[in-house]
Amino acid sequence: MIMSRSEARHNDGSVVTGTLLDRLLTGLPAEAVLTDPDVTVSYANDMASFCPAGAPAVVVLPRTVEEVQHVMRTASELRVPVVPQGARTGLSGGANASDGCIVLSLTKMDRILEINPVDRIAVVEPGVVNATLSRAVGEHGLYYPPDPSSWEMCTIGGNIGTASGGLCCVKYGVTAEYVLGLDVVLADGRLMSTGRRTAKGVAGYDLTRLFVGSEGSLGIVVRAILALKPQPPQQLVLAAEFASGAAACDAVCRIMAGGHVPSLLELMDRTTVRAVNDLAHMGLPDTTEALLLAAFDTADPAADLAAVGALCEAAGATQVVPADDFAESELLLQARRSSLVALEAVKGTTMIDDVCVPRSRLAEMLEGVERIADKHRLTIGVVAHAGDGNTHPTVCFDAQDPDECRRARESFDEIMGLGLELGGTITGEHGVGVLKKEWLARELGPVGVEMQRAVKAAFDPLGILNPGKLF
Amino acid sequence: MIMSRSEARHNDGSVVTGTLLDRLLTGLPAEAVLTDPDVTVSYANDMASFCPAGAPAVVVLPRTVEEVQHVMRTASELRVPVVPQGARTGLSGGANASDGCIVLSLTKMDRILEINPVDRIAVVEPGVVNATLSRAVGEHGLYYPPDPSSWEMCTIGGNIGTASGGLCCVKYGVTAEYVLGLDVVLADGRLMSTGRRTAKGVAGYDLTRLFVGSEGSLGIVVRAILALKPQPPQQLVLAAEFASGAAACDAVCRIMAGGHVPSLLELMDRTTVRAVNDLAHMGLPDTTEALLLAAFDTADPAADLAAVGALCEAAGATQVVPADDFAESELLLQARRSSLVALEAVKGTTMIDDVCVPRSRLAEMLEGVERIADKHRLTIGVVAHAGDGNTHPTVCFDAQDPDECRRARESFDEIMGLGLELGGTITGEHGVGVLKKEWLARELGPVGVEMQRAVKAAFDPLGILNPGKLF
Repeated sequence: MIMSRSEARHNDGSVVTGTLLDRLLTGLPAEAVLTDPDVTVSYANDMASFCPAGAPAVVVLPRTVEEVQHVMRTASELRVPVVPQGARTGLSGGANASDGCIVLSLTKMDRILEINPVDRIAVVEPGVVNATLSRAVGEHGLYYPPDPSSWEMCTIGGNIGTASGGLCCVKYGVTAEYVLGLDVVLADGRLMSTGRRTAKGVAGYDLTRLFVGSEGSLGIVVRAILALKPQPPQQLVLAAEFASGAAACDAVCRIMAGGHVPSLLELMDRTTVRAVNDLAHMGLPDTTEALLLAAFDTADPAADLAAVGALCEAAGATQVVPADDFAESELLLQARRSSLVALEAVKGTTMIDDVCVPRSRLAEMLEGVERIADKHRLTIGVVAHAGDGNTHPTVCFDAQDPDECRRARESFDEIMGLGLELGGTITGEHGVGVLKKEWLARELGPVGVEMQRAVKAAFDPLGILNPGKLF
Repeated sequence: MIMSRSEARHNDGSVVTGTLLDRLLTGLPAEAVLTDPDVTVSYANDMASFCPAGAPAVVVLPRTVEEVQHVMRTASELRVPVVPQGARTGLSGGANASDGCIVLSLTKMDRILEINPVDRIAVVEPGVVNATLSRAVGEHGLYYPPDPSSWEMCTIGGNIGTASGGLCCVKYGVTAEYVLGLDVVLADGRLMSTGRRTAKGVAGYDLTRLFVGSEGSLGIVVRAILALKPQPPQQLVLAAEFASGAAACDAVCRIMAGGHVPSLLELMDRTTVRAVNDLAHMGLPDTTEALLLAAFDTADPAADLAAVGALCEAAGATQVVPADDFAESELLLQARRSSLVALEAVKGTTMIDDVCVPRSRLAEMLEGVERIADKHRLTIGVVAHAGDGNTHPTVCFDAQDPDECRRARESFDEIMGLGLELGGTITGEHGVGVLKKEWLARELGPVGVEMQRAVKAAFDPLGILNPGKLF
């Protein structure tokens, strides 16, 4: 049967879905096309709170570039929206399904195609799990730095889509800095290569970087050439306790202004320290108002820790504990690693924000979040990649209490407003997705939004790629 | 008088120029508008060979963002092409004037607006000279790494336009990695801000990186927020002589695969070594077929040099000379620094190529260039940022000899073809400009070119920004 375009667009009926499935199955094996609603519903969401998600018409799990091209050609032809997904560990709803969409899961394209120690590159498919790649390159003495907290689950494709960060960024930067080249299937199914496999290259506009952080809205990444670093020495960690958040932030400023290059510089506020104590009985003193963790993976980490310890004391640290060895370092990091789980245990549900400010404004950010928590009678813990000024204020609330939910949502908005006031950005590493799209326009301004939309229209004129995200 | 659009477009007559000047002078002081052909002709060219340049209708030298906006509004209204310029030290003709264009020189917007050691950023206008910025941030213990050889003259705006590299890239990366945010005047005169002043940020598409390397074809950068590093220790240099280019390239591969992070890793081939000897009597042995220079700016550079020296010997180095101190290091670097001048002295004129290959293919690149030189009976010296695989094959020729000019041009094309064959790019750091625009399409392929053009059209629908470059 021949459908009108409006029928095809209004994609919630069996007619369209029937046609869609028939077409998809001409280029995909049956086991790569999931339609059972009990199964497809499990692909509806990523890990963000407060983000609506629709019911996908179908979930496809291609294994080859050609299959992805077939999916996109079909979607273009039938004007069906496509939502690309990795492991769905995102925190902004960027991978949430929309009603009647094709969920395009890249998780089956999970091969590491090449690891080259001389050129210091890896070539991978998008579904490779971050930890799998990290371990594989480690065997060659190499290092893939980006380490989002979900690194044991999240995929490189998802990391590229959201431009993920992690704990190591203060020294090693974010995902974007490790993506040299991409193969991308465009909205209409054509295949485009961007970038290079060389260390340098400036041939034409940097479309590679344009795709990094584009949240699946410009094309489908099917292959990535990643830059690697040599494996650094193991890091040695120092913990410093402070009697105020402001003192800890002052220490951060002294460390960074002092020319130090820590491999990690993390801050936990009082609320977070107490939550961790309650959960894990780590024996952190309950009087601690802020805990700073600094690490160095240099040739002489003990010397670096001594210098940074002195700066912490100058900033008023009440106690400075440098680890003696790597095992002790790991123990100190456990406190930071269990922060989010501990905060979740406080009230059952958390909403994790991701506001990055200039590190010189970090103390103001912490004070402001405390004010906002008091005003809304909420528990808000802050963990921060302090060296980057990247804070994760985490609102703890009872999802069964409508009034508390409302206050949580309001506080979240106020925290983003505060971040912008301090010269920051509404997202340091989690992306915009559904969660922050109203805020993106505030950050970018009208001209910025217009030009971003023009770029989107250039790559996806039909608007079928991850619609309703970002803008 | 009222002009038709076609009159305005056909911009080689006094009518149009008269109107153009009148309009420009409504928003620019008289001294910022140059029309004397004896003066404007000196703005026609950058430093590339074999690149045609037209006669500008006018050269404007704005001092404020508003003046740049006025220029772009005027240009859009009258459909006059605009060629943005920094110091015109480029090597691809990217800043060459077209007939009847407005040359928009940003050299008078040369203020450093802010240097912030805590946030490790500088905020600058585009006309700031690279060396001026480097010295200014050095006084705060900070370091702006990108160091193109023209660093004493070239501007930050020009560096951003061409995504410049330099000697330090093997450790510190290229200009793109240091641009956090931009203010850009769009083709129609509107002002857009991109990016951020924070260490991290992923709000929307990365338009900042899209502008870096766009050769003035998408908008006019009027302000840049740059990331800075702490000033590293002074570097210590080692020189290693080899009996073949292949052996030197083998050493490069061993060094990079061995996990070393040199702050400089440069290679000079036999032709270059001899040219430098002839010019500067540096006493390099005439039997040397290749010279490798490695440097480390680490805490213990002597130890790093010892390890790298051993790798050079394992690769067959005939002599390894580690510098004892920083003064000696500078002497060793003189050989590299004088390479291009020395090659220019060989025949009066040079044509510098900029082909980057995976470093594992560097030896094949060197051999291939030698074959091409033999075939065309030309002297071609190769200097290379070897750690990056970024070669600068430099064709030495007599510009008065038409046949030699033809052979030089042909060899240049063959060198780019060779680079692509080896999995490389036609430009590592010099950009496309006029010189390589025919080659860009070969590297990007038809889909790539189409999408690049779509991006161009989104930002510059009238096609007035630096027309005839890149594509």
